Amino acid sequence: MAREGSDDIQALIAQVARLPGLGPRSARRVVLALIRRRATQMTQLAALMARVAETSRECVRCGNIAEAELCPICADPGRANGELCVVESVADLWAMERGRAFPGRYHVLGGTLSALDEVGPDDLGIPRLLDRIAEENVTEVILALNATVEGQTTAHYIAEALEGGSVAVTGLAHGVPIGGELDFLDDGTISAALRARRRL
Amino acid sequence: MAREGSDDIQALIAQVARLPGLGPRSARRVVLALIRRRATQMTQLAALMARVAETSRECVRCGNIAEAELCPICADPGRANGELCVVESVADLWAMERGRAFPGRYHVLGGTLSALDEVGPDDLGIPRLLDRIAEENVTEVILALNATVEGQTTAHYIAEALEGGSVAVTGLAHGVPIGGELDFLDDGTISAALRARRRL
Repeated sequence: MAREGSDDIQALIAQVARLPGLGPRSARRVVLALIRRRATQMTQLAALMARVAETSRECVRCGNIAEAELCPICADPGRANGELCVVESVADLWAMERGRAFPGRYHVLGGTLSALDEVGPDDLGIPRLLDRIAEENVTEVILALNATVEGQTTAHYIAEALEGGSVAVTGLAHGVPIGGELDFLDDGTISAALRARRRL
Repeated sequence: MAREGSDDIQALIAQVARLPGLGPRSARRVVLALIRRRATQMTQLAALMARVAETSRECVRCGNIAEAELCPICADPGRANGELCVVESVADLWAMERGRAFPGRYHVLGGTLSALDEVGPDDLGIPRLLDRIAEENVTEVILALNATVEGQTTAHYIAEALEGGSVAVTGLAHGVPIGGELDFLDDGTISAALRARRRL
């Protein structure tokens, strides 16, 4: 009891320490900073967190975070342009949206295929994705999966399942990031960028 | 609205991003991880945070976090042994307690003297500390302040204010940390450890 505050404070530190990117030491710092501003920031944060936990749900169509049955993107008829972008996570969907370059709709898999973790096509809802592609007059599926082994395995699986249909299947280009320096890039990226070189 | 969740989610990310050690990117990760476990972890964390904000207060005697007027250390008569350890923050008090080596009581300054930030002795409650030392039959004051310029300035100020009284004023020893390698230590620590060398 005397060591690091009350049982509640210790429980709070333990819970904060389980959040991604935090550990016991940073959780202590966070909790102490919150307690220092307990009357304002901490009370507000607790209320906001409770409200978001209460009102958030999954979009029944794409898996994005929503407050209604459909997320704002699925509810917007202007985004039904036949392009469907498949992403691993909501974080990736947000990253795509920050780029403001994609006018179509999304499908969030919620993970990647993994033999090791026993994640199969059914766990990712890939049959549901294929149904959706058939039902929604999709003309192009953009597989915006991470350039990791698992991401690319998943992309190949989906591409094969769509082979022979009328849907174009594309993937994001590999290359030098804007502002990137060659010296800091891995060899794979440099070869990919060289193979995909373009006339200026 | 469509970009990174609802207004509430954006507000939650902004609040989490203000916590020490977190930024916009890690705040997004934390909030997404919480929303994924909104029914369990997120609701629990919000409730716990609200409860700690509600029940936490400052110990009227030492400045530690407490749930009553006195913190568990000040409420424990067994810790009134005449030794008073002065620390900068509650985090430092917790660090001392983890060491389980100090049997006395604490005094939390809540900062250090700083001409730049206009923090003077009154802002740190140093007059109150001096009153406390006089009232509580303190025989030794251990200045466990950080080995930074501000920490040491504050330690000197308190030591001078106590000069000529009957109270012994001590500071933590400088030296090689347990498990530390000389090659990774700064020159100041090595010289301090050499000057304070002990016969084995």
